[in-house]
Amino acid sequence: MPSPFDTHLDPVDANYQPLTPLTFLRRSAAVFPEKTAVIHGDWQCSYREFYARSRRLASALKQRGIGKGDTVSVMAANIPPLLEAHYGVPMIGAVLNALNTRLDPAAIAFILDHAETKILFTDKGYSAVMKEALALATAAPMVIDIDDPLAESGELLADEDYEAFIAAGDPDFDWRYPADEWDALALNYTSGTTGNPKGVVFHHRGAYLNAIGSVLSFGYDSNTTYLWTLPMFHCNGWTHTWGLSVAGGTHVCLRQVDPKLIFDLIDRHKVTHMSGAPIVLNMLIHAPEDDKRVFAHGPIDIATGGAAPPSAVIAGMEKMGFRVKHLYGLTESYGPSTECVWQDEWDDLTFEEQVGKVARQGVNVVTLHEQRVVNPDTLEEVPADAETVGEIVLRGNTIMKGYLKNRPATEEAFQGGWFHTGDLAVLHPDGYAEIKDRAKDIIISGGENISSLEVEEVLFRHPEIMEAAVVAMPHEKWGETPCAFVTTVANGADLSAADVIAYCRDNLAHFKCPTKIVFGDLPKTSTGKIQKFVLRDRAKES
Amino acid sequence: MPSPFDTHLDPVDANYQPLTPLTFLRRSAAVFPEKTAVIHGDWQCSYREFYARSRRLASALKQRGIGKGDTVSVMAANIPPLLEAHYGVPMIGAVLNALNTRLDPAAIAFILDHAETKILFTDKGYSAVMKEALALATAAPMVIDIDDPLAESGELLADEDYEAFIAAGDPDFDWRYPADEWDALALNYTSGTTGNPKGVVFHHRGAYLNAIGSVLSFGYDSNTTYLWTLPMFHCNGWTHTWGLSVAGGTHVCLRQVDPKLIFDLIDRHKVTHMSGAPIVLNMLIHAPEDDKRVFAHGPIDIATGGAAPPSAVIAGMEKMGFRVKHLYGLTESYGPSTECVWQDEWDDLTFEEQVGKVARQGVNVVTLHEQRVVNPDTLEEVPADAETVGEIVLRGNTIMKGYLKNRPATEEAFQGGWFHTGDLAVLHPDGYAEIKDRAKDIIISGGENISSLEVEEVLFRHPEIMEAAVVAMPHEKWGETPCAFVTTVANGADLSAADVIAYCRDNLAHFKCPTKIVFGDLPKTSTGKIQKFVLRDRAKES
Repeated sequence: MPSPFDTHLDPVDANYQPLTPLTFLRRSAAVFPEKTAVIHGDWQCSYREFYARSRRLASALKQRGIGKGDTVSVMAANIPPLLEAHYGVPMIGAVLNALNTRLDPAAIAFILDHAETKILFTDKGYSAVMKEALALATAAPMVIDIDDPLAESGELLADEDYEAFIAAGDPDFDWRYPADEWDALALNYTSGTTGNPKGVVFHHRGAYLNAIGSVLSFGYDSNTTYLWTLPMFHCNGWTHTWGLSVAGGTHVCLRQVDPKLIFDLIDRHKVTHMSGAPIVLNMLIHAPEDDKRVFAHGPIDIATGGAAPPSAVIAGMEKMGFRVKHLYGLTESYGPSTECVWQDEWDDLTFEEQVGKVARQGVNVVTLHEQRVVNPDTLEEVPADAETVGEIVLRGNTIMKGYLKNRPATEEAFQGGWFHTGDLAVLHPDGYAEIKDRAKDIIISGGENISSLEVEEVLFRHPEIMEAAVVAMPHEKWGETPCAFVTTVANGADLSAADVIAYCRDNLAHFKCPTKIVFGDLPKTSTGKIQKFVLRDRAKES
Repeated sequence: MPSPFDTHLDPVDANYQPLTPLTFLRRSAAVFPEKTAVIHGDWQCSYREFYARSRRLASALKQRGIGKGDTVSVMAANIPPLLEAHYGVPMIGAVLNALNTRLDPAAIAFILDHAETKILFTDKGYSAVMKEALALATAAPMVIDIDDPLAESGELLADEDYEAFIAAGDPDFDWRYPADEWDALALNYTSGTTGNPKGVVFHHRGAYLNAIGSVLSFGYDSNTTYLWTLPMFHCNGWTHTWGLSVAGGTHVCLRQVDPKLIFDLIDRHKVTHMSGAPIVLNMLIHAPEDDKRVFAHGPIDIATGGAAPPSAVIAGMEKMGFRVKHLYGLTESYGPSTECVWQDEWDDLTFEEQVGKVARQGVNVVTLHEQRVVNPDTLEEVPADAETVGEIVLRGNTIMKGYLKNRPATEEAFQGGWFHTGDLAVLHPDGYAEIKDRAKDIIISGGENISSLEVEEVLFRHPEIMEAAVVAMPHEKWGETPCAFVTTVANGADLSAADVIAYCRDNLAHFKCPTKIVFGDLPKTSTGKIQKFVLRDRAKES
């Protein structure tokens, strides 16, 4: 006999609706209609206008025949049309593909073809690369220019401009919620250190939950002012594009990571929150003193991830009036899946001890179901001994739907019922995970494992070193040995390889010290990750 | 051809897990193991212990053969075992039925039978009523006593006590998430002003979302200390029972609403948040001055709902160091569905104007999909003119699964795809709803509608009136006319009916003034709602 708790109690419209971040903007437009939603240079708009512009976009897209499951690509800096696309595109069931602005034309052409892009919005500032990409692509999407007034150069590629396009749309457009919360919402290509990029598909359910997770992590509320130092194309800005609408906060747009402009905007708009890779923090720290500001309204919360913030970076940021929060995540996890939650008792530690705590990736965010550090073969959890290395695996509703048109990669990523991050970590006795390396970045020297991250952390603490990356170099005797690639700060030109090696020997076990130092710029992926495979090749050749 | 966004991208364990509030406690136990989770008198326990005790309960229940879909009833004050039941019971797929401690034996017996209770935990303090209820009930559940050390009287009814019961359970019990987020989690009987109570079924998905909604509404974080002035049996304490675990906050238990004890506990534990019906606020305001405290750590946020807080109550609370937040909701909506969100520009209003704003029920909480004020026949939205009265209807994932074993009532409540609240409201131009009355509480005098709430609000402002309720009284000429039932404050014994009527005529349109005043205690439901149907009968008889 079926349980009475399951009889005549099926979902109906009144008690079951798809989870979708679209509800957040509709509510903020109702609750905070006159509040400033978006600031871009001297332009700004209220939540009422933000919502109306997003509805115009949805309506105009529908007029052109765009609908459910169609891909809408946007190549743009962090500007209002890209924010509007986060709402207008899914309002008609279409899928937002925010293009990585640092990609080359061939990679963009690959994406336009793979994503089967139906319509492309392209920011004038990226016209050179897009012109070439469109020539290379097999697909021939409709093209609409975004003639951003703050773009300093570039040309228009099409006959139609975004403002004219949405002007033809209806600001009261009767948009629809997705039929199913599992419907695709966004498509983000991983930068990939090798091979073709993979298309990570987000669904409405995951975006809704991750956006709420970001609000819970950072404590966003209606007084939050968020500066866009993080690219919106990067996992949809870690879903903060939607998260700010949960709280009714204000977006401050930003075309490029320019330290002087960032300091100006923080001061002018009383920015409360921002995010970015450690390199962004580094750029702020090493900005000319004249460009810096003392903030009367601080401290400013800055979230960082992608790599652990070196202690020198945390110290430098705190000195300037920031509070650093360490996160970890991947495109496949909608951005942050893991946060280093501050514990009250850390207040009493020394600064160095605090940095040691904060440099760890930490625990799962509330909205991720579960995180484990496991033996990748058996999926058994490693002991919380801060020593046994395992792989971080994730599970929950804020994990991608899968890779678009790539069943083998999807199945491999989800093997055994967990998403495999490929990041190797230890679990501390307090349950906080700490990444030791990417699986392929471990250096094995004389049978001993060397964490490239540990060596990099020491290099970062050197006052004349701005960036550092350490990879394995073949060695006749030891098998492998560390090779360090280093860029120096402006006044660090005198630093020699011998100086760096001597410094390392003072601060590291000798077997862990780099035997070779290479000075110069570091090759990076379009999302700012250092391309270690390039460095490994260089190390081999040298 | 199916869309590539729907091909080989089905949910799997890695990216789809049931939403359930059980994840919150598991995470808080991992992230805040040593933090104080629950305080009860001089007893307290950490999150590690709270989780272990909940797992022991789950394990012990399983040992007794309790499993999926079985009802576990708990008759208890706001004490630790009831909090633990919010986790331990659903860990094995069973359904928590927190009994209303103010019910009479016949009502409890009805519920035990209707809910098909398999096991009952009963607090010594309620042994008299439970002994009678068990004698009346057809069902014969297992009975376990809760021998709460702070219960002042009562006897033990069974051979086994809660502490012994859970001691036999495994603190590392390998509990399971629900198979489906739509599975039943809790069963709460509405007090019902007439007829048999209805069993409102909550599911895991709704409890997860509403708990998160409560955190977003109140800004709970790991520094939150919540005092249980609200009954936990009331929609599972508006889901704060689970919400505190989202944030890692601290519960302070409370056996009874005793103003002196409340002031003491606020001061002793630096309470930051609490909730309660307006009558609780009233009791605090009218407490002897000697019992009150000045709080150095304030202000204390207090959420109230069930009826709009009268301006005198808001003023009185603010004077004592509280900040009042007005909510609205029903058992069917897991508690709060609606909140009066504060707008920055209200800062500049006079206190009277602010109270006018705050007395409105407001807008839907973030996690409710949608709220409307509609013509109940056509479901068309009323104009936002602050005048046209319509019914508040709600829709979303935080609406009950339905009424247990009551298909007709479920279908009636969900007619037309919305949950019908039965509350009549206007919509203000700023989109905030304001309840004018329950459908059946409107007084029609000479063809004019009189809102009983409006008359009550005026009566509440009288310094010598503590509580007031206004109902329709038959009248030969006008059809109906208002009759007011009033209780006075301790020093208000001299107030006469003529005084009250004269006061009303000074503050209301004359046709709205009560023509009769009755002094004395007001009859209330077990959840503290005034029983207007009793007053209507009295008004008719008089």
